[in-house]
Amino acid sequence: MTPIEIALAEAAAAAARGEVPVGAVVTDAAGTVLAQAGNEVEARRDPTAHAEILALRAAAARLGSPRLPGCTLTVTLEPCPMCAQAASFFRVKRLVFGAYDPKGGGVEHGARIFAAPSCHHVPEVIGGVRESDCAELLRQFFAARR
Amino acid sequence: MTPIEIALAEAAAAAARGEVPVGAVVTDAAGTVLAQAGNEVEARRDPTAHAEILALRAAAARLGSPRLPGCTLTVTLEPCPMCAQAASFFRVKRLVFGAYDPKGGGVEHGARIFAAPSCHHVPEVIGGVRESDCAELLRQFFAARR
Repeated sequence: MTPIEIALAEAAAAAARGEVPVGAVVTDAAGTVLAQAGNEVEARRDPTAHAEILALRAAAARLGSPRLPGCTLTVTLEPCPMCAQAASFFRVKRLVFGAYDPKGGGVEHGARIFAAPSCHHVPEVIGGVRESDCAELLRQFFAARR
Repeated sequence: MTPIEIALAEAAAAAARGEVPVGAVVTDAAGTVLAQAGNEVEARRDPTAHAEILALRAAAARLGSPRLPGCTLTVTLEPCPMCAQAASFFRVKRLVFGAYDPKGGGVEHGARIFAAPSCHHVPEVIGGVRESDCAELLRQFFAARR
């Protein structure tokens, strides 16, 4: 599976657990999967337990390093400002995301974390990958809850 | 001790461990300390282990709730964008901080998290409390490392 397919599978698994369906994966420069995670906000009762944060932390723990140079963070949804800043702190080389998030996103919307002159490390950003599949998971999840 | 004094003590303890001296404390509406923490980025090799994140998580775990309504987060340094967004997610009522951080801050500087129209919960913000004491800890720490 490609990274975005792994992230989509993590998002679908999150939805099945009653979590907002967002999934993330960290791959190294060779494309090896270092860590993957789905959203665990409800299970952990922790609003910082976003898929990105969990995957970044797990990847760093696996490498034994707080830095992930050369690595790519792939996520099904445009990261929020918290996760975008975390991706910068972890020094990921590239951020790939699926659906855009005009309401909660912090990359192309809202706080636009990487556009701030004080953002010390700015990853390459590729948005809109498998956008409709990623967005459809979210749409179905919220439609079922209404 | 007042919350900012507790946060200052946590920051001093962090410096003694070789961590950038930032401390944070979460108090409830009655002023009871729910959690306190110092920066643990180096010890955990985790750039998300900021004092604020650790204190917010611990307070939420203590209450058994992902929301901290009525609570105040007091921190020695203006939070970065990651921590400011986390404070919003945890729904803290008030953010009190000591030193301003023009380079890394995300409240009065940089991404200005709470100023984004898409920020769903904006706490009351009081900056500059015991500013010189909080800044002096940081100045001494970095001066000793040069």
